[in-house]
Amino acid sequence: MQETDFGRRLVAEALGTFFLLATVVGSGIMGESLAGGNAAIALLGNTIATGAILAVLILIFGPISGAHFNPAVTLAFALRREIGWGQGGVYVLVQIMAAVAGAVIAHLMFDQSLIQSSTNMRTGPGQWTGEVVATFGLVATILGCIKAAPQAVPYAVGLFITAGYWFTSSTSFANPAVTIARTFTDTFSGIHPDNAALFIAAQLAGAVAATFIMGWLLKRP
Amino acid sequence: MQETDFGRRLVAEALGTFFLLATVVGSGIMGESLAGGNAAIALLGNTIATGAILAVLILIFGPISGAHFNPAVTLAFALRREIGWGQGGVYVLVQIMAAVAGAVIAHLMFDQSLIQSSTNMRTGPGQWTGEVVATFGLVATILGCIKAAPQAVPYAVGLFITAGYWFTSSTSFANPAVTIARTFTDTFSGIHPDNAALFIAAQLAGAVAATFIMGWLLKRP
Amino acid sequence: MQETDFGRRLVAEALGTFFLLATVVGSGIMGESLAGGNAAIALLGNTIATGAILAVLILIFGPISGAHFNPAVTLAFALRREIGWGQGGVYVLVQIMAAVAGAVIAHLMFDQSLIQSSTNMRTGPGQWTGEVVATFGLVATILGCIKAAPQAVPYAVGLFITAGYWFTSSTSFANPAVTIARTFTDTFSGIHPDNAALFIAAQLAGAVAATFIMGWLLKRP
Amino acid sequence: MQETDFGRRLVAEALGTFFLLATVVGSGIMGESLAGGNAAIALLGNTIATGAILAVLILIFGPISGAHFNPAVTLAFALRREIGWGQGGVYVLVQIMAAVAGAVIAHLMFDQSLIQSSTNMRTGPGQWTGEVVATFGLVATILGCIKAAPQAVPYAVGLFITAGYWFTSSTSFANPAVTIARTFTDTFSGIHPDNAALFIAAQLAGAVAATFIMGWLLKRP
Repeated sequence: MQETDFGRRLVAEALGTFFLLATVVGSGIMGESLAGGNAAIALLGNTIATGAILAVLILIFGPISGAHFNPAVTLAFALRREIGWGQGGVYVLVQIMAAVAGAVIAHLMFDQSLIQSSTNMRTGPGQWTGEVVATFGLVATILGCIKAAPQAVPYAVGLFITAGYWFTSSTSFANPAVTIARTFTDTFSGIHPDNAALFIAAQLAGAVAATFIMGWLLKRP
Repeated sequence: MQETDFGRRLVAEALGTFFLLATVVGSGIMGESLAGGNAAIALLGNTIATGAILAVLILIFGPISGAHFNPAVTLAFALRREIGWGQGGVYVLVQIMAAVAGAVIAHLMFDQSLIQSSTNMRTGPGQWTGEVVATFGLVATILGCIKAAPQAVPYAVGLFITAGYWFTSSTSFANPAVTIARTFTDTFSGIHPDNAALFIAAQLAGAVAATFIMGWLLKRP
Repeated sequence: MQETDFGRRLVAEALGTFFLLATVVGSGIMGESLAGGNAAIALLGNTIATGAILAVLILIFGPISGAHFNPAVTLAFALRREIGWGQGGVYVLVQIMAAVAGAVIAHLMFDQSLIQSSTNMRTGPGQWTGEVVATFGLVATILGCIKAAPQAVPYAVGLFITAGYWFTSSTSFANPAVTIARTFTDTFSGIHPDNAALFIAAQLAGAVAATFIMGWLLKRP
Repeated sequence: MQETDFGRRLVAEALGTFFLLATVVGSGIMGESLAGGNAAIALLGNTIATGAILAVLILIFGPISGAHFNPAVTLAFALRREIGWGQGGVYVLVQIMAAVAGAVIAHLMFDQSLIQSSTNMRTGPGQWTGEVVATFGLVATILGCIKAAPQAVPYAVGLFITAGYWFTSSTSFANPAVTIARTFTDTFSGIHPDNAALFIAAQLAGAVAATFIMGWLLKRP
């Protein structure tokens, strides 16, 4: 990544996070509108689209920006001193803005109000535990796979989120930028703005725990 | 590709585009006929089949013709001077004829009238935006992945369209030859002939934008 | 394969074809029994299981026997003089016997009569065309991918059949041994014994056509 | 693996088995709660999540501990003298404890009683045959793939279990630690404690048979 200038890296982060959110929100709308009230079928469409696009976006943008698309991942790399705190902060700002833009484009594609406010309550210790587990797993996937099989990272991340949409009670947001953007959509994938802060806190806790535990585990004597 | 004569390249483009359309139209018919009225389940079958066959066809025919199967992709490569405008024009003609033949074989397999005229209205700014986003993403996937991980292109394209069927309001036609061929089927995957021109215009706009933006982004100092 | 003695190669063909049929028939029974009458959902389970097991079986047994599991594929390799007609004939006998044994073990697992006779009519020009297209595509996938990306063959075959279950009207039997074995099950995946001969004829026609067309296409000057 | 100390290997086994069970149990709860009574759709969510997480966990933890997560797999490696019986015994203890912890975290995420006792009867010769077939296939997949294409093991195992959830009547537990942990959940994926012993016996029989048959098959003259 040293070869790519910072401006191009930010554009890569922006495009990737934009497409990620367009997919999360857009496929949620599509799934819900076609599934005839069966939430499992809606979630299935949402899952397949999100897992697939994540693999694609990391394949394309990974060599340019590292393909974080996620403040929790940027935090993990900052803790590991693989990105500076200043550059990391700019990454996070760009991720959040691009994520919101991705939700807006999804609304535009589906003929909905561009900015909405979610009424979808996602709260309680079970879901917060879900976000800790999800983000721990996501960061562990990235750190473990970068070391063991770097060319497999795009697929591993797509597969982890595919699993996470089903095995965590919160459906694995696992990403503060995604969480913020999803407060702006009152559709299948939305989250009430009042619920965002604790989701984000749980995500950061999971990311920090994974960074240290995987850091120890992957250290070879 | 220099090693393969132009005739073989055209046959590869024809076979690939033929199988692509046989799959898009055939799996749409199968999905709709079995899904008992649940459009999400029909789209799921349509998605899985299309994503899977794309990966296979690009694996097989990529080394022969480049596996465009898509005038928007041929346009992108022509803009990048990786195929001549004359050869590109012949590619496009072959793609369109093979695409229509693929729709016809799907009708033959499912005991339907061989040539039909779609009555499926797909129109409006939302869907046009969908086609811009879809084709931008498809061309970005191809150009980014060829540079970053060329052996992953077949899977990346299959995964992008898998996501696109769900996250864009238009279900990601993203291909003028596919669009023309789908006017000839009055089944799940059809599009009314009157709606084709604006779909194609949106696709070309997305392809051109992706060619220039990705061209800049992938240029290393 | 020259390194492996013929006995071990036959055991590999037998184990692979046995597991393939156990999966085709078993997942058909499971799908139908759980899907509550929605045939698309039953086919989805059948598809996912069959595509997945094919990739696995070719990964494991490919380096031992070539992982044909299919008289149409053995025919293609015999026409290309990559297996002798005598050895090919023994392959086919073993494939058929193992395929029937795979259907029997599926019945044993699901507490059904071990040998049944299918009453599932699958006939007509549409479905025969489907089998020609399916087997042409399967053999083209194998021959094209062996040349272009040999390590991708297991995934390509799994993905082709995944698509084939949905885009061909016959659900892509594409395999005479599979066809014979499926006459012995009166469940979701069965085919009436009277319909087998024309399915097999269509499969052989598709395999021969693909062998010659792909042979020409893949020949570099 | 010689490079990694035994403590780190145990932590890797523990984390992997923990996430595996969190996924098996958690996605079963999610699937059942959303699927509106359609068991095939619930099983589909359960399948996709389990297959996906297995690939991820083996990618990450394989280079550290070998990623057994399964006493039947540890038994196979002990029979092949690739792990000592003493270390293997400790692996098994850790796998069982981590598996139970994974079920508990799933209950915690979904706001359920942390320890439950399953009332889900899974018994009879059909299902026992299913477990023999499933574990034979799983161990054959691992041993065959390690020899033929080691970098494909994570995907092959995920794909085998994806198929196994549908083609075996028992839905392929194929793992004594998983079986024990699933007695502690009275949800979709549970198994009545009285049924566990014969499932485990069948699994060990399948694992031993696969170890010897594949050992012979993979031996080159």
